[in-house]
Amino acid sequence: PIFQEQGMTETVHNWEDHGYLATYIKKNGSFANLRIHPHGLVLVDLQSYNDHMKGREEVDQLLNKVEERMKELFHGNIKRVKRLPAILRGGVIDRYWPTADGRLVEYDIDEVVYDEDSPFQNIKILHSKQFGNILILSGDVNLAESDLAYTQAIMGSGKEDYTGKEVLILGGGDGGILYEIVKLKPKMVTMVEISFDKQLIIHFNFLHPKYMRKTCGDVLDNLKGECYQVLIEDCIPVLKRYAKEGRMFDYVINDLTAVPISTSPEEDSTWEFLRLILDLSMKVLKQDGKYFTQGNCINLTDALTLYEEQLSRLYCPVEFSKETVCVPSYMELYP
Amino acid sequence: PIFQEQGMTETVHNWEDHGYLATYIKKNGSFANLRIHPHGLVLVDLQSYNDHMKGREEVDQLLNKVEERMKELFHGNIKRVKRLPAILRGGVIDRYWPTADGRLVEYDIDEVVYDEDSPFQNIKILHSKQFGNILILSGDVNLAESDLAYTQAIMGSGKEDYTGKEVLILGGGDGGILYEIVKLKPKMVTMVEISFDKQLIIHFNFLHPKYMRKTCGDVLDNLKGECYQVLIEDCIPVLKRYAKEGRMFDYVINDLTAVPISTSPEEDSTWEFLRLILDLSMKVLKQDGKYFTQGNCINLTDALTLYEEQLSRLYCPVEFSKETVCVPSYMELYP
Repeated sequence: PIFQEQGMTETVHNWEDHGYLATYIKKNGSFANLRIHPHGLVLVDLQSYNDHMKGREEVDQLLNKVEERMKELFHGNIKRVKRLPAILRGGVIDRYWPTADGRLVEYDIDEVVYDEDSPFQNIKILHSKQFGNILILSGDVNLAESDLAYTQAIMGSGKEDYTGKEVLILGGGDGGILYEIVKLKPKMVTMVEISFDKQLIIHFNFLHPKYMRKTCGDVLDNLKGECYQVLIEDCIPVLKRYAKEGRMFDYVINDLTAVPISTSPEEDSTWEFLRLILDLSMKVLKQDGKYFTQGNCINLTDALTLYEEQLSRLYCPVEFSKETVCVPSYMELYP
Repeated sequence: PIFQEQGMTETVHNWEDHGYLATYIKKNGSFANLRIHPHGLVLVDLQSYNDHMKGREEVDQLLNKVEERMKELFHGNIKRVKRLPAILRGGVIDRYWPTADGRLVEYDIDEVVYDEDSPFQNIKILHSKQFGNILILSGDVNLAESDLAYTQAIMGSGKEDYTGKEVLILGGGDGGILYEIVKLKPKMVTMVEISFDKQLIIHFNFLHPKYMRKTCGDVLDNLKGECYQVLIEDCIPVLKRYAKEGRMFDYVINDLTAVPISTSPEEDSTWEFLRLILDLSMKVLKQDGKYFTQGNCINLTDALTLYEEQLSRLYCPVEFSKETVCVPSYMELYP
């Protein structure tokens, strides 16, 4: 009756062995489902089009009434009551960007800053109240302005001395690594990033540095600086060229892609790509050089283990260590 | 027809001005809602009782078919398609613990370790794959074993020298602060925590240290150590007693409660409690002493501003600074 008092029309479906479904329809286009399972689970879903605050208060009042009535009916003998925040769908702003391990998380997005397809991927810049601008590549949260922790970790967590060193960055389009290393007076940093468009980068590039100022500072305003250069190229031929020329680096930092989620390393082309990059990188690394890269969500243990196995299959023996960090905008721990 | 091919029975409701709602009911107790809004928004919800993997694959296949069919019907002219992870309700394990600013977030909870009501609050210990055990007090994520960052921040972010100092901890029942300070060779740490039960603490206390070993080590296995004592008392009378006795501390660390979310500081009793604690704490603090406490989610700007205003209303003038940290299990930035 609580729903009917709201002017909602009831339709009831009764399964023989699976309980009831009551659907309540309101004239304004809202509706509710009340699903009662025989063992005592009751699920209430309310769906309405408008989500102004008044709507939310009305919903809360309605749910309060349902809760009170149920407590009366069962003499308070209810094990658990849980009310979840409303899910907002179909609006201009999409607040739901699931984690790498598939969990539903809602971000405090309040603005779509940029949303375009590049030849390589969909690029979104969404503004979060707490994380600043977030770069989302083909639906995956890549980096936010709050995420210096990611950049610091992939640079060796402050334990490396980059002064006077030769550094190669693979990918790194957000400019965070380049910006942080240049501060440390390296001899030369070469960044190889395919996702920029040569014609457009200065004026309207695919990822304009203005969107991630806190991350990249002014380092991407020019493709060359006193101690760095940005090559807009596929890194594979560049690595092959450097290997042939005998050009060597103190550090190679691979910021191209996370460890593939797929656990079929023999079939998946991302794994093949990853092995190729690893092998080529070892070829341009000095004897005591270091290679840094990202892993993936700590819960993707199978994928992370497989990645470690790849390391024992390189053409030369390598030693490795790993560290897990909390990257604010990821909402998961990240090795 | 895709739903009907699955053996689902259709019921359609047609609003004059608000589009359609089609409900599809399956014999096994599952059902689907297809809500079509006149301006082109289509929402599909599937609800089913079992959530074994086979169920998920079936759901994905069904949704793939719906998506394909819609793309055909609209000749690919669809602006956006978004599929959210399933929401799991009514199980033994509840994975949804909204943030302080009300966002829906799903945790990777895989075990309910402990769930009891104490005289003060509901205490849950839930195990997360990535965060370890999480302490949840009356529905709010309080601290996880992964959250050393919280403890370090409320201790002054490593910038304080606790050697030979007198420290007073208010609350801090998880033992994290006590454990970390004791390592730093203080003169004496006094922790005042009401939520322990004197009779039970050693054997079956409300928050047994075994649940948060990574956080508290062995420091709560006894109520006294070489340089610390734990008082199972309400901190207000303790503070009053210390103030009267003229007992002074180098540090007071208030780990009792977050800044109240309510923004009616004149009415809310939590705000009153907070002001009382602040005033009493200043009375037991040495001239150059420091007081540390937590804020709340960075998005609760009104509440945080109000808290700062309280600081100017204390009986003695104080200086303050603030720092924001990323606490892994909070999924929000926290000043």
